[in-house]
Amino acid sequence: MPATQVERDAMQRALALAENGPRGVNPQVGAVILSPDGDVIAEGWHRGAGTSHAEIDALTKLAPGAAHGATAVVTLEPCNHHGRTGPCSEALIDAGVTRVLYAVADPGPRSAGGGARLRDAGVQVESGLLANEATALLQSWLTVQRLGRPFVTVKWAQSLDGRAAASDGTSRWITGPSARADVHHRRARADAIVVGTGTVLADDPSLTARSEGGELLDAQPVPVVIGRTPTPGSAAVRSHPLQPLFYETHDLTAVLDDLRGRGIHRVFVEGGPTLASSFVKAGLADEVLAYIAPVLLGGDRLALTDIGVASIEDARRLAVASVERLGDDLLIVANPTGPAHAPTRGDV
Amino acid sequence: MPATQVERDAMQRALALAENGPRGVNPQVGAVILSPDGDVIAEGWHRGAGTSHAEIDALTKLAPGAAHGATAVVTLEPCNHHGRTGPCSEALIDAGVTRVLYAVADPGPRSAGGGARLRDAGVQVESGLLANEATALLQSWLTVQRLGRPFVTVKWAQSLDGRAAASDGTSRWITGPSARADVHHRRARADAIVVGTGTVLADDPSLTARSEGGELLDAQPVPVVIGRTPTPGSAAVRSHPLQPLFYETHDLTAVLDDLRGRGIHRVFVEGGPTLASSFVKAGLADEVLAYIAPVLLGGDRLALTDIGVASIEDARRLAVASVERLGDDLLIVANPTGPAHAPTRGDV
Repeated sequence: MPATQVERDAMQRALALAENGPRGVNPQVGAVILSPDGDVIAEGWHRGAGTSHAEIDALTKLAPGAAHGATAVVTLEPCNHHGRTGPCSEALIDAGVTRVLYAVADPGPRSAGGGARLRDAGVQVESGLLANEATALLQSWLTVQRLGRPFVTVKWAQSLDGRAAASDGTSRWITGPSARADVHHRRARADAIVVGTGTVLADDPSLTARSEGGELLDAQPVPVVIGRTPTPGSAAVRSHPLQPLFYETHDLTAVLDDLRGRGIHRVFVEGGPTLASSFVKAGLADEVLAYIAPVLLGGDRLALTDIGVASIEDARRLAVASVERLGDDLLIVANPTGPAHAPTRGDV
Repeated sequence: MPATQVERDAMQRALALAENGPRGVNPQVGAVILSPDGDVIAEGWHRGAGTSHAEIDALTKLAPGAAHGATAVVTLEPCNHHGRTGPCSEALIDAGVTRVLYAVADPGPRSAGGGARLRDAGVQVESGLLANEATALLQSWLTVQRLGRPFVTVKWAQSLDGRAAASDGTSRWITGPSARADVHHRRARADAIVVGTGTVLADDPSLTARSEGGELLDAQPVPVVIGRTPTPGSAAVRSHPLQPLFYETHDLTAVLDDLRGRGIHRVFVEGGPTLASSFVKAGLADEVLAYIAPVLLGGDRLALTDIGVASIEDARRLAVASVERLGDDLLIVANPTGPAHAPTRGDV
């Protein structure tokens, strides 16, 4: 039975409730319980790892038996796994809910299957109601589920001929103010900004997201420094409004695993060339941002160094998603193609 | 006195006559002589170096005295220098012409000044009639006059990260069929296509302009090979429909001088990296075409090598004229900026 207007309104409300929850390791989910007459009898949302799922949060507001014959409207497919809270599918069945509508299927290998479990128990299940809106809300979390790690953007600035700096190492500013402003706004949309220790020592970046006037933007990425060389006590990154994370390792997968565990969905890798090349080489660049300044430099200071490509057949193929002019500069956004990186619409 | 409709029509006719002449060292020029009543009494055009200028070609068709009180309509300012044919300005004065209209001023340091010479002699002179049309016809010649050498386009194909090939040297095909077709059409619009001996030995290119089906296009550039290594007798370039030119030198200015003397206006430098870098280093690249394939290669096979830039302040700054998507690839067309290369609208 397709969704009624009352159920549609309830899903809209559930989406609004979901936004009360934090973005992080767990998804933002909202739930509304409708009586058989279509009245809203309970609402709930998920407040983050270790707390009740949205359906449970709503059900627990009801007197025993009050959900009998009710309809549950949830933004994400009810889970089916025994975690800290027990499967939501069974809680809904136990509560006597007879109809469940959800917007987006749970992609999790352990948590999925709630819809099927409900159907098996004779509950009417409808999926896909306001799926686009729910997907937009959950986009970065869904991407993390799909990839099994945070979504990684690797950004660099280069001359048209692929150099990050002139022969003597000077590079300020290879790109102009529009390109730099664009970088800061993208930093603000990322959860973490990652650099290598080489960049910390060479450039002493603050790793903050700032306006063109130099003020801190509202959203700040967590600063992350990767590498074995210690970061000096006086480094600008230590004054970042968020606590920096230091990983004294070259194991990028381990770093990403740890970041995922901290609820980080979107990682913005800013360099330098060695770290950017390592991410590309490891197949861990889901998006490449090349800010191209219309200058030629020649020489050996390359924006990318070795990425493990020996022959043209092994080239890391990309698909250009967009080309934008930013002042005098260009921004090319591209995504890897090929088996390891089937392009997915709507990634973070 | 502004131009009459009859004079305008005569200029249109003179432009058509000009096109009869060859493109080369000398400009294509046409001339029409009008009687005082506005009748066309003679026509002429320039047939190339060593032959009469257009005005003289027209005047010599008239009986002595027949040009008395006549109007001369010429596509280019009558010359004022004593070359093989004597100054046209004086010939017009001597013939008794009392009014001269020309479309475009002569930019030549030796030949200019004909308009002033005519005015000094009391001749009515009007310039700029159908100037846009005449400029379009003379564009590449005018550029050669301005630069003092042919207009040089330096083209290369590169990965997004600035490589011309993978580490093992493989590069076929770094860019796709649309980009290659674009290159061939641009070859056909050039007068000469220039490569280094390294490219001849490595790739054995035919240096022809071909359709996507592989047929020769109507216009073919003169193939030019620069470098000290001899070109093998079996090299494909020796089968080019035009006689190849071999320059066993690294003196690019001398090569361009010689090409100018052969009436070549537009030079298309196709590589490899060493030659392209030499042209950029010498400040002899008037236009850069970077065909960018959306691949990453890393490694040391760079599209540009050393261009003599030590510090970021010495970067060769360009202005991006256009960005075009060609299949999966991008074409960035850019021109040098700065004192040596003030951008000029309408260069070749």
